[in-house]
Amino acid sequence: MRAITLALASALAATPAAADYLVKEVGSFHIGGRDVTLTGLPTKDVVFSAGMPAIKVDPNGEFVAEQMYVQYVKLAQPKAKVPILLWHGGGLSGVTWETKPDGKPGWQQFFLNAGYDVYVSDAVERGRASWARYPEIFTSEPIFRTRKEAWELFRFGPSYEVGGKHVAFEGEQFPVEALDQFMKQGIPRWATNDAATQKAYDALVQRVCPCIIVVHSQGGNFGFTAALNAPDKVKALIAVEPSGAPDPAKVEAAKVKGVPLLVVWGDFHDKHPIWPKIRANPEKWAAAIKAAGGTVDTFDLPKMGIKGNTHMLMMDRNSDDIAKLVADWIGKQGLVN
Amino acid sequence: MRAITLALASALAATPAAADYLVKEVGSFHIGGRDVTLTGLPTKDVVFSAGMPAIKVDPNGEFVAEQMYVQYVKLAQPKAKVPILLWHGGGLSGVTWETKPDGKPGWQQFFLNAGYDVYVSDAVERGRASWARYPEIFTSEPIFRTRKEAWELFRFGPSYEVGGKHVAFEGEQFPVEALDQFMKQGIPRWATNDAATQKAYDALVQRVCPCIIVVHSQGGNFGFTAALNAPDKVKALIAVEPSGAPDPAKVEAAKVKGVPLLVVWGDFHDKHPIWPKIRANPEKWAAAIKAAGGTVDTFDLPKMGIKGNTHMLMMDRNSDDIAKLVADWIGKQGLVN
Repeated sequence: MRAITLALASALAATPAAADYLVKEVGSFHIGGRDVTLTGLPTKDVVFSAGMPAIKVDPNGEFVAEQMYVQYVKLAQPKAKVPILLWHGGGLSGVTWETKPDGKPGWQQFFLNAGYDVYVSDAVERGRASWARYPEIFTSEPIFRTRKEAWELFRFGPSYEVGGKHVAFEGEQFPVEALDQFMKQGIPRWATNDAATQKAYDALVQRVCPCIIVVHSQGGNFGFTAALNAPDKVKALIAVEPSGAPDPAKVEAAKVKGVPLLVVWGDFHDKHPIWPKIRANPEKWAAAIKAAGGTVDTFDLPKMGIKGNTHMLMMDRNSDDIAKLVADWIGKQGLVN
Repeated sequence: MRAITLALASALAATPAAADYLVKEVGSFHIGGRDVTLTGLPTKDVVFSAGMPAIKVDPNGEFVAEQMYVQYVKLAQPKAKVPILLWHGGGLSGVTWETKPDGKPGWQQFFLNAGYDVYVSDAVERGRASWARYPEIFTSEPIFRTRKEAWELFRFGPSYEVGGKHVAFEGEQFPVEALDQFMKQGIPRWATNDAATQKAYDALVQRVCPCIIVVHSQGGNFGFTAALNAPDKVKALIAVEPSGAPDPAKVEAAKVKGVPLLVVWGDFHDKHPIWPKIRANPEKWAAAIKAAGGTVDTFDLPKMGIKGNTHMLMMDRNSDDIAKLVADWIGKQGLVN
């Protein structure tokens, strides 16, 4: 009895706090990509350290381009039947899903705590996926997002004047005091890599799914198309503020009627002229899937009484509340033990 | 009794496998960086999706540059007294320390399994740290590493011919069959960001240390200088194949005599003309610290009977053996409970 009591005490001492979770592996890989050989470019003199003589750099040779990066945390005892994949939006990387700009836990943490194996990726050209020389490999120039564009397009507030004058929307949920931290997460983007990006995402689905996929913004189109390309592998798709979608006049929505779809929209869509236009295509696509007999739900947060969410709702102060709604919806699809 | 037995059985059922570990938090942040405003640049017409009309992009505005990215895994019950920070080398990112190109666990996993809180970072300009427009913000052009340079400089084999002809060194430990995967980890680098990078690393040390720092290759100089800038915060420094070091004729090595230093060298240094030259400065710096009364050890692996290691020894087949030697050395510094 004493031995049992001691063993029990010892076992209980090792019992995790409610928020701790037992991890089997943190790991990563690159997927996709193609080999490219460059020839005929002039050499360059490069000074690698101040005061050192220049070294001749020959830019010609063999490279790889258009791969993507995927990092996963696998739990020892996941509750979810399949992993969840978090796909970021334009001008951003997988960091979108990690710790929020205000230092609080983001959706990666939420879903780990909830018992999911979580895969966070950097799409082609972003972050740890790396990028390629242009215009020789990537065929256009990169685009860098300004603070003004982020502020206005992501619906943090009505307008941003260069020099810093900006006022948040009333009732705004984005932690605007952490705007500097958010801007540090930005990654240059190209407008000419969509096909390569889709190819890499499709390869990812073939490698790690069946799965649940959560997409944000630019990721919307990639997620919708990934489901079309592998409807048997995508067990649920959650599109958070998707910025595009296939056209049901051209693509048969019935193909994905077996993929439960949840679309999530934040607040202030009437405050920026682009948003009603952006919203039209994903709504049309979702309606077409529903008409074809698919399971389609929309969380229009303000209509549900959840006010003040921006385009970056996974970083908003109430991000856990929204993640909880999403997790409950996933549970209803029978994907969690 | 029955209740206790049941509780015990339940507690034991939750006992992790030997390799599992209890995690408190996976998180990340950006640190450092400065605001930059660009003005007077011409607008550009950009086609964002094939078939869509061009959109005018104004590259002027406010940006942030020179921040770095840091990801951490904090354990619920770490055994190490302080966290370990893993700093990558040139043309690479924090991925260096994650899953190896051959798919096996790397040093991040090793140190998590060994009970360390592990911080893996992407230096300024690399990976999730992002990069800035050039030549307006970064003052030079990026450099992309060719397959030939990686093969030869990292001592995978004697020479690489464009077109693919290459033979590994005999007894080579790098998994050359995974060379394609390794090349996907490459990230463009600049030759003009050293000061900004050092500043960001120094800020990281102030934020998360006391700590142990492991540096690789180009990271060597940053680690040596970080120790000089905060000798009270760096409890041990492990320099894996460092490519540079301060000059003891100019910098007082005694400043870091309280920072135990371990230098690790792989094999084949006599097979590429650059390596004896690269090795000279770190060896001179280590000798100066030792002469000043510091704790300095060198693991010259081939001299210890460990043959075949390349410059990327944390990815070599025997990477765990080397990590084990490093962990034992850290233990001897009194940094593990």
